[in-house]
Formats: sequence, structure tokens, C-alpha cells
Amino acid sequence: MSKRKIINDPVYDGFLSIDDPVILQVIEHPFFQRQRRIKQLGLTYLVYPGAMHTRFSHMLGALNLMKRALETLKQKGVAISDEECRGAMLAILLHDIGHGPFSHTSERVLVDVPHEEITLLMMQRMRDDAQKALSMCIDIFTNKYPKHFLHQLVSSQLDMDRLDYLGRDSFFTGVSEGIVGTDRIISMLNVHEDELVVDEKGIYSVEKFIISRRLMYWQVYMHKTVIAADQLLLSILRRARELNLSTFNFPLSSFDLDRFAEVDDDDVMVAVKHWQHSDDEILSTLCRNLVNRRLPAIRFSNEPFEGVECDYFHGTGELHNRSYDFNDQEIKVLYKDGRCLPISEASDQLDRHFLEKQVTKYYHYFPKDQ
Amino acid sequence: MSKRKIINDPVYDGFLSIDDPVILQVIEHPFFQRQRRIKQLGLTYLVYPGAMHTRFSHMLGALNLMKRALETLKQKGVAISDEECRGAMLAILLHDIGHGPFSHTSERVLVDVPHEEITLLMMQRMRDDAQKALSMCIDIFTNKYPKHFLHQLVSSQLDMDRLDYLGRDSFFTGVSEGIVGTDRIISMLNVHEDELVVDEKGIYSVEKFIISRRLMYWQVYMHKTVIAADQLLLSILRRARELNLSTFNFPLSSFDLDRFAEVDDDDVMVAVKHWQHSDDEILSTLCRNLVNRRLPAIRFSNEPFEGVECDYFHGTGELHNRSYDFNDQEIKVLYKDGRCLPISEASDQLDRHFLEKQVTKYYHYFPKDQ
Amino acid sequence: MSKRKIINDPVYDGFLSIDDPVILQVIEHPFFQRQRRIKQLGLTYLVYPGAMHTRFSHMLGALNLMKRALETLKQKGVAISDEECRGAMLAILLHDIGHGPFSHTSERVLVDVPHEEITLLMMQRMRDDAQKALSMCIDIFTNKYPKHFLHQLVSSQLDMDRLDYLGRDSFFTGVSEGIVGTDRIISMLNVHEDELVVDEKGIYSVEKFIISRRLMYWQVYMHKTVIAADQLLLSILRRARELNLSTFNFPLSSFDLDRFAEVDDDDVMVAVKHWQHSDDEILSTLCRNLVNRRLPAIRFSNEPFEGVECDYFHGTGELHNRSYDFNDQEIKVLYKDGRCLPISEASDQLDRHFLEKQVTKYYHYFPKDQ
Amino acid sequence: MSKRKIINDPVYDGFLSIDDPVILQVIEHPFFQRQRRIKQLGLTYLVYPGAMHTRFSHMLGALNLMKRALETLKQKGVAISDEECRGAMLAILLHDIGHGPFSHTSERVLVDVPHEEITLLMMQRMRDDAQKALSMCIDIFTNKYPKHFLHQLVSSQLDMDRLDYLGRDSFFTGVSEGIVGTDRIISMLNVHEDELVVDEKGIYSVEKFIISRRLMYWQVYMHKTVIAADQLLLSILRRARELNLSTFNFPLSSFDLDRFAEVDDDDVMVAVKHWQHSDDEILSTLCRNLVNRRLPAIRFSNEPFEGVECDYFHGTGELHNRSYDFNDQEIKVLYKDGRCLPISEASDQLDRHFLEKQVTKYYHYFPKDQ
Repeated sequence: MSKRKIINDPVYDGFLSIDDPVILQVIEHPFFQRQRRIKQLGLTYLVYPGAMHTRFSHMLGALNLMKRALETLKQKGVAISDEECRGAMLAILLHDIGHGPFSHTSERVLVDVPHEEITLLMMQRMRDDAQKALSMCIDIFTNKYPKHFLHQLVSSQLDMDRLDYLGRDSFFTGVSEGIVGTDRIISMLNVHEDELVVDEKGIYSVEKFIISRRLMYWQVYMHKTVIAADQLLLSILRRARELNLSTFNFPLSSFDLDRFAEVDDDDVMVAVKHWQHSDDEILSTLCRNLVNRRLPAIRFSNEPFEGVECDYFHGTGELHNRSYDFNDQEIKVLYKDGRCLPISEASDQLDRHFLEKQVTKYYHYFPKDQ
Repeated sequence: MSKRKIINDPVYDGFLSIDDPVILQVIEHPFFQRQRRIKQLGLTYLVYPGAMHTRFSHMLGALNLMKRALETLKQKGVAISDEECRGAMLAILLHDIGHGPFSHTSERVLVDVPHEEITLLMMQRMRDDAQKALSMCIDIFTNKYPKHFLHQLVSSQLDMDRLDYLGRDSFFTGVSEGIVGTDRIISMLNVHEDELVVDEKGIYSVEKFIISRRLMYWQVYMHKTVIAADQLLLSILRRARELNLSTFNFPLSSFDLDRFAEVDDDDVMVAVKHWQHSDDEILSTLCRNLVNRRLPAIRFSNEPFEGVECDYFHGTGELHNRSYDFNDQEIKVLYKDGRCLPISEASDQLDRHFLEKQVTKYYHYFPKDQ
Repeated sequence: MSKRKIINDPVYDGFLSIDDPVILQVIEHPFFQRQRRIKQLGLTYLVYPGAMHTRFSHMLGALNLMKRALETLKQKGVAISDEECRGAMLAILLHDIGHGPFSHTSERVLVDVPHEEITLLMMQRMRDDAQKALSMCIDIFTNKYPKHFLHQLVSSQLDMDRLDYLGRDSFFTGVSEGIVGTDRIISMLNVHEDELVVDEKGIYSVEKFIISRRLMYWQVYMHKTVIAADQLLLSILRRARELNLSTFNFPLSSFDLDRFAEVDDDDVMVAVKHWQHSDDEILSTLCRNLVNRRLPAIRFSNEPFEGVECDYFHGTGELHNRSYDFNDQEIKVLYKDGRCLPISEASDQLDRHFLEKQVTKYYHYFPKDQ
Repeated sequence: MSKRKIINDPVYDGFLSIDDPVILQVIEHPFFQRQRRIKQLGLTYLVYPGAMHTRFSHMLGALNLMKRALETLKQKGVAISDEECRGAMLAILLHDIGHGPFSHTSERVLVDVPHEEITLLMMQRMRDDAQKALSMCIDIFTNKYPKHFLHQLVSSQLDMDRLDYLGRDSFFTGVSEGIVGTDRIISMLNVHEDELVVDEKGIYSVEKFIISRRLMYWQVYMHKTVIAADQLLLSILRRARELNLSTFNFPLSSFDLDRFAEVDDDDVMVAVKHWQHSDDEILSTLCRNLVNRRLPAIRFSNEPFEGVECDYFHGTGELHNRSYDFNDQEIKVLYKDGRCLPISEASDQLDRHFLEKQVTKYYHYFPKDQ
């Protein structure tokens, strides 16, 4: 008898129905279940208490969108086989599987291997274990599959990953500025010369999408207090490493896929709580500060801070929104008359001046009562 | 300079603004910050992936509703002093502070002290520490304060606790059946002879509230798979206790307020992950099952199961919705002509037959592949 | 080149995409466009100002749901041909086409032909004009088509009509009590022995649906002030008829399909405004009262009013929720083990006692300042 | 006994509660009730079927926001007396009272008096009738009242009018691009040197507001098909005027406040339906086209159309978003350190380049089958 799983998702005000046995098997894999214990936005919940959502829910959400995008494209006459559908769905489902705990924060400190590489290692392991179907998924993920638009659905300026995380992060933080017309954007997708494009009627939705993304960037992803909390966690991890401390299996000394696959947010937080009682006063102070949310003060500036002392309690850094880069690969708009223009030419709102605008901000953090 | 805190809450599509320094101080207390690490619905996220919301967000939500309820009552001419307002707000903010990790599941195994008692101990500690303002809060919480309707706002058939958790749990699970007309119910509250009542126009909203509550009960709180996951965690805790195992500070051997205040969901999950490698095969199997979400099968029945073997993998139990009991204290409706009737007489939809309907269900869980 | 129409619908938080040329042609027909000028809830906007939505939007909404229901059933293996899909979609699209202005109110006074009959006449006219495809639509609508479950999708306890109007009326009135888990109910539909049924997992959603329906009944459809406004309009129409008054093409003296098809809400309201200046003082007073929303007072009672004078300003009536009758055809639930039970047996919440509960209310209306 | 009115408003997911007898009296006035029969967005419902909402609901919505804005300002220590509150609430409630049917379209053809002037005439009439309280309302409306920020709440770049209509139009059209963080913007309002400003923390919300406004402009207010429908109605009104045709009281030959106050959307539509049977073939064709939604084709261009024939069926025009002009009076941001900067300097996203961007579009309409 065939299984069928129905999963509620408050973000899409409905639910996801899955009956492909290969996809169900991937979801049941321990690597995937681990993502239930890794928060999508790390310490952001210290600013937006609703932001407790996990990478697990994001990955299922992205799968949901991919399913709808593939249906739309097929309805518009784009040739996609059942096997390719499954491949693209697996690729989006697993595109973030290699993330570790508090990954954007801890990546540099926890292990030396970037998460994209771990993702690939995990995909390969899952393929070798049992699931041959993952071969095409890996080809699509690494952009070696001939139909390149399938890769673009997984990773491009308008992929299902971003579409889901922007909507999801907006939903759970309660920052309505980030709401994106997901349904509409998906219905406007098309393929032109093996490239993912947007139909002419979708220009406004793309404009809204780009603007929302920029607003979410500063209002959530780069929120002052989130940066301050991240710095605190970084200081803790650095200090613990110097002291050669460890708890059960955290932090990791060297990279080992199986050990890595057992570590999640909970291990980090339990270690931090444990180190509150450390003999090292620097470490214990830092840990008590994080556990009880006594975060550093932080100041932003358009100019670099100079002559600032840097230790575990003070420091500087810089932020820029370069991750939203329009230089390499712009979203393209397909007109009814067959023309295909980049959004910077198609839009009256968003010209290159706006799109290329790079904002760099410098910050300085220090103890609050100073 | 006075501080003012604005906290986003996706549930109420807006945010909570707090400027009372006493309340801000209570929120910053470690006892309160700990609730950021305790999920409101325990293991329910294994069924509804969105249900990661914490007791912390629930407590702030209930505070939000209390604030609005008090404003409504004052506008209707009910005499409530500023000090009483603060007392009632503190009482709702702290009404659940004594909950431990996975509390509905682990309460019987973790410590022998019921959470209501721990709540009171924590309130007293916080009062003794510094905050004299908590005295009135404690009186309201324990129903010793002369204006009894203030206690009813904290604990009764129609308190701000239930109003928030029903709406919140419905929001994050995505189970729209539980949506409650919170705004409307609050605007219909009134006080009659020192009793919290509902204005005549609010009958339909109360009907909807009671029905939603019953549906949420079976669809979320007593969901088959949630019960199965709870049983699994219980078996793990029982087995670990028998083996006298412990990790850092979990489980607790005997009750100590300060040690208890350091334990949260993360400690439980890290212990469970650790015990996956235990020499005891029963314990390690149970733990691997929970970590990788291989939950027991469960069967419900209207009749008790008899002759069933009971060990760590098999067992039986029963559920009834007695927590929704209408016998002691019914919601009352205040008519324009001055009459005050219980909802079972006021409503055409909900007569006593419906309200008193007791449903008991028996369940039997066992390994899935059996 | 094929046309494709995308229509935004705020209720479903998305939009409807139509590309079937036959359906597009039906939507462009003057009979169908007329429904843009007929409000779904008549004078209800005098109580709920948001309730300005039209029959046109309801009919497109019901089409949207029908499309999804047919897709669900096909995915579950129910055999439905493309032609049958189109037939069922046309049937739901046109199921209410025969409604006249303020139809629930004016039907008895405006023309002697019931709207179901006019609907059929209009369908036949449209078929004779050009659209042969309407033949199957008419068979499904009149339940002469062999696959009876298609008729049940159009007209039964759980048809797409009710599902849309409950959600839509709830949305536009802002009465959140009526929100229905439409997506979930549709995904739970199935066919068993040529009968539309609900899968076992959908029991809770059906319970919620039935309860919402009853609450919407009293809170919106039978709202005191709506009844009072309806009585006022009825008195106006009766008086105008007695005086043999008419404006352009309103009211109609005898039934003529083409003349009828030109009349909509606007004609009624312009006539009422015109009659404010009538020499007949009764008529002019009644009309000024409606235009300026000076509605009669109304009193409800569980007992009939006796000895009440009845004229244009005073009167009595009775209401009962018999339109929600469970006696003839109950919603059936299909269990995994093959059993198929009526909801009154399947549900723990809704037994026959609740379902059969008939509420009759008597009302008496009279001038407010009396 | 004091009256209290509760009005549901789906847009704010709650309702408005009014108990001020003066405001209740103004709402009951025939001038105000007339707005129930004038749609907020004219013929836009021919593109977005949900856009049936009325000026009546907009005016109550704007009142709701004004109430909240005044409460926020008072909480921040801005001195506003009860009488000034009432004045500002009346001013926003009546700010659009002078609009006639399909006003943005018909204003130039229907009467020669601009709606702002009619608004003032109506306010004065209502004041002379009975309501002395309207004097301060008129002073605030005409900006003669000393506290100028009260006028800015009624009419400025960030007034309660725009805030409500953007949110409301977005809600009813289903164009989610226009959603505005109303709650947040209001909570960020402040007064600085008698000027309405936004607190520093509100920058992102203002950015979002400005961008949403621009997107709504092209996606709804200046939607191609809406412009085409407007042109059709304009041609009808011009032709009818030339032929000296009239129905009951439409169109108006010369301006008379009382006659004007009787005319609404319904009169226009009934006249159009009536003229379908006119002997003048131009008029009857135009009217049949509007009634049955056979709208002209329309083409947009960045260059003017030259040499185009202009008659009732063909024509040209131009659109520009000058109504969103930032030159005269920019939104100002108040920093914690006391500085007060215009948004073009405060924002990293919106520099003058973006804000001043003027878009002019030229259009050409003509019969579809040409």
C-alpha cells in the first residue's frame, strides 16, 4: 500500500501532500530529521520571539514551492519528465542539508568545511546508502545537468529557496514588510532558451520581491541586536576553543561527517549553559550573558571605527548586502513579443542605480553598561 | 530616561509595547528568559513542524491580551487602579513560570513537585529578591485578592491564558479550526457582582470559542502521533531513571529551585541524543527512535484495551477531555436587562447535553513494524 | 492564440487562472456579467459595511473550488473525463445565474418564478445561443447525469457553492467565526459508490464546517438588523406594487427572461431613491427610511407574537434554520477499512441530538421611536 | 442611556467601537449614508472583482486609524484635548464627503465644482444644521487650526486617509503588494515642533509604505484595463451631455448641493443601462459595451502617440504619478538625539534619485476588434 503524508504549514495557509516514496524516504533519513533541531534564523529569536522556525520547515516549504513551480512550467509547455521533477524536488529538499548549528554564526569556528561542501557530502552518502535517485538530484544541484533552468529553480536570483525563506522569515518574525506574492511569482515563471524567466505580467511582483528582500535584509537578517547576539556567541566559541573545552560532542575538534551529523542547536545551548559555571571568568561571564540575554550594546556607522580595542567583550565589524548581487545574473523578463530583458531595463521602478546600490555599514560592540 | 520595549508578535498581527519598568524587569529575570528555551507544545512539532513556539512567546501574548482586557473593563466603568492593573499583568505574565522542559510529558518523571507549586515558589523568590510589586500579583494568582474577577482573568473558563494559547497554537500549527475571535471576546468582557462575565452580544463568540477549544483538543493536544511521541519520551525518562543515568544537570535527582531553573528542553534533547550510545540496548533503541522520529504505532478505541503486555515499547493509556470541565464554573452572560445566565442556558447551540459531553478514549501503542 | 485570464480573489489569497475557451465565453455572456451588479448578501452591508461582494465573485470562487475538488478526486483515482470536468465547472459557475436583485428578499414580490427555474431557463438560452457544451452542464445541474457525485459537487450538504459562500461571506463581513478550512475539506473529498464522501481524516474539518455554518446563520444571515432591513424593503416593494408604480424597468409586471436579465440591485435602489419624492406618504417615508438607514426596531422571541397590528411599518415573522437540514442527505465519512458512516455516527462531537436541533425564532418589527 | 456602535471591519481584522454621540450623529446624516452607495475605486471592480468596497467603509477605516494615532501621540506626551481629538476625528471622517459617483472619472463631466469644495460646503451645511462641534473640524480640515499637526493627520504625505486607502484597496483587490504595516507606522508617529514626524525606528516601515504606494499606483490605480473602462464611461457621459439626455436626476445640469447629495453610483449605472436602448447609435453602443464589459483595447508607451484620430471610441491620454510628489513636503524622521531629517536623507534605500523619479506614460485606446 502506498503511503501519503500530509504536513500542515501555517505559512502557506494550507498543507503539503507528499506521496513519492523516494522523497518520503529522504525525509525520514536522520540527516534530514536533524534539521528539526536547527533553527532557520539562529539567535534571531532573541529579537523576534516568533522566529523559532527550523530548517526542517523551510526545506519542506521550498519543496512545496518547487512542486508548484514545476506544475506551472509544465502547464506552459516546458518539457520536464517525471524523473526530472523528482530530481529537482530532491535538490531543493536537500539544498541546505549541510548546515550545522547556528550555522551563519558558527561556521567559521565550528568546522573548517563550508556548508555547501558538507551538503554535497551528505547527498553523496545518502545516494551511496540506498537512493540511486539522488544521482540526478546531485547533477542538478551542482549544475551539471543539461537543463540548466532546473538548477536555477534551486539556486538563482529567483529560486524556490529564497522565495520560501523570505516568506517564512517574514511570517514568523511578524515583519510584514517581507511579505512576497509567492503564488503570483510562481505563476509567472517561464523558461526561455533554457533559462528561468518571468512573464511580462510579473514585473510588479518581481519589483516587490526585490524590494522586500532588501528591507528584510536590514530589518531582520542584519538587525543590530541580532548582530550583537551573534558576536557574543562567536566570542564564546572562540574562548572555549582556546581553552580546549568541550562537552559531549561539542565543539568538534576535526571534521567527521557522522559526528557532525549529530550536532545541532541544542548541543550549543547546553554547552553554553554548562560553561556558565566554568572557572574561566571570561567564558563564564560571556555564557551567563547569552543565557540571560544580556547582549552587548552595538553602534552602526557609515564610516569604519578606528582605534577600538578588541577582546572578547569589544570589537568591530562590517556588513554589506553583497549577497544580493545583481551583477552576475539578473532576473530576466519575457515579453509577449518574444523579447527577453533584464529586470533593470524592464522595470520603471528599479533601474541599475537602485539595483546596484551597495550599502556598507560598520559596527562597534561593547558591554552595555559602559 | 524611561525604557520602552516593542516586541513583534506574528499571532496578533502587530506588536506589544511595554514601558512599565517593573514588568520589564520581570521579563529580564533569568527565570523568565529560561522560558525562551521551553516549547509551548513539547513534542507536537514532530506532527506540526510549525509548532516550535515557546512558553516565552505565549506569556507575552497573554500579557498583551490582559492589557487589552483591562482597558476594555475600565472603559465600561469597572474600577481598577493602576496598581491592580500591574498586579493582574504580572500574574498572567508569570502564571506558567514554573513549567519545566516538556512539562506536560515529563512532569511526573522529572520532579515530584507540580508546576503550579513551582510557579508560586518562583514568584516568591522574585518578590523576595527585589520586586515588592509582586505581592499583589501573588495575591491575585492565589485568588486571595478581594476583587476576584482579577483572578478570573488569570484563571477561569475564559481567562487570558486560554485565549492566547488557543489562538497561538492554532496559528503555529496551521490548524485553522482553532481560530478564535479574540478581539471580539475581549471587547465583550464585563464585570457583574465581582464576577467576570460576557455581554449579551458576545454569545456567538463564546459558542465559537468553546467549540474551537474542543476541536483543538482532539486535533492538536490529543493528536494520536503526539501521544505516541509523548509515550516514547516517557519510556526514555523512566528507563534512564532506573539506570541512574544522568547528563550534566538532567534529570534532576531531587527538587532544588535553582537547579530546576537551569533545565530546559535543550537539556532533555541533548541527554536523549547522548543516550543513543548507551550500553543499555533498551535505552539506546528508544533514544534513536525519538531522535530520528521513528514513533510507536498507536491505536485509539472507545473501549479499554485488555490483556496488553506493558514494557518500554508497548503500553496503554486513556485520554479524556476533563480539563474542559463545565461543572464547577460556567461562563456567564450578562443581558441588557440585568439578568446573568450561564452559557448553557443562554445559548441555543450549546445546551448542557453538549457541554457536559465527556469523551474518553483508550489507546494502545506498540512498535510500528510489529 | 489561446487566451488566458487571471482573476485576483482576495478570499483565497491567490487567484484563479482560466484558459478553457468555453468557460471564458460563458463568463463574458451578459447574463453572467449582470451578476457583477447583484450583491451576494443583499442589504447585509447595512450591518456589515464590508459585505459588498457580488454574486459574480461568488460564482468565480465556487468555480475555483470546483477545479481543485476535481483535481483532488482525479488524483485519488476517480474516473472523470475532461468533458465531465468542464460540465461540472460550468454547472457550478451557473448554479445561481437566475438570481434577481436582492433575491432572497424580493423573490416573492418581484416575479413569481423561483430563481432555480430562471437559472435553468438561462442555461438553456445560453446553450441554444451557441454553446453546445452546456448540455452536459444542464444534465449535471438537474441531476440527470449518470455520475451523481458530480451533481453533489454542485448541490449537496458539502457542495462547492456552500464552501465558497461561507468562506466568502465570513471574509467580507469580517465575522471570523465563519472561517472554514476549505483547502483541507477539499483535499479530504472522495467518491464511494458514486457518492461524494469525506475521508476519515477529514472528520474534524467537517465538524468545524457544520458548526461554522450554524454560527454564520444566526450571526450574519439571520442577523436582527438584516431582517429589519429586509422587512423594510419588502414593505416598499409591496406598497409600490399596490400603487402600480414603476421606474424604468422596475419592478417587473410579468416575467420575461430578457427584461428580467436587465434588472439588478442598482435599479431597485434608484427606484427607492426616486420614490422618496412620491406623493404617497407611506411609500415616501419607507423609502427615505431605507435610503438613510433608519431601520425598524426588531425584537426576537422563542414564542410567537400575538395580537400584533400588521401594516407597512409593523409586522411579525418567523425564522428557522431548516435550510440546514440533515434529515434527507447526511455527509458521509469513508473509513480506511472501507466502512462508510454518516457524520452523526462518525463524530464524537456532533451526534443526532445536535445536528437535528431545530431553532425557530419569532420576530416583531416596528418603528424605532415607538 | 448612551449608545455605542460596534462596526466590523475585515481590513483591520477587528472592529471599530464608537460612542461619541456627535460622531454617531454625523454617521447617521444622509450625506454620510450616501457614501455607502459610492464605490471607493469606481470601475476598478471590472478588473479586480473584489474591489466593491465603498467610500463609507474607507471613511470609517480612516476614523479608526485616526483614533489610534491620537492615542499614540497622547501616550508620547503630545498635548491634545478631548475637543481637539473629536475635531480631528470628524475631519478625517468627512474629508471625502464631497465625492460624487465614480468621482475620479466623472468629476470633470458631472459638475464643475471640485470635490474638495463640495466637501467644505457639506461640512458647513452639517454644522449649520445642528452640529456646532463641526467648527473645529472645519478649521482643522482647512488648516486654520493652530496645531498644524492635526491637519497633517488628515492631509499630508503620511495621513490617515492614505494609510487606510492603501491597506483597504490592497485588501479588497487581493493585490498583496500594497500591504502596509499600518499598526507599526502609527505607533511610530510623533510630533516635533508642531509637525507630524516618524520616530527613528520607523524608517523601514516608511520605506515600505512609499514603495507599496508606487506599486499600487501602477498595479491598481493606473491599471491599463481600469483606464480603458474609465475612458469608456467618460465617453458615455460626454455623449449624453451633448445629446442633452438625462434620467431621473442624472446627470446634473448645474450644481445644487441637495440634488448632488442624492446622486450616487447606482444612478450612473441605471442611466447607462437605460441608454443602451437610446436611438443614438454611438451612445447605445458605448453603453452596451460598458454594461457587458466589452472594454476598449489600450496601449501604453513612453512616448506620446501622434496623429491619432479622437472620437468616442478612440483617444489618447497621459498618466503620471505626480500625485506622489515629494517636493513640497517630505516625511520627516525624528532621531533619538533630537535631529529631524527628511526621509530622503534618513533612508539608505530611498534617496532623492528614487523619490523624485517621475514616470509619465502615454496611452492610446481603441476598439478591441480593430
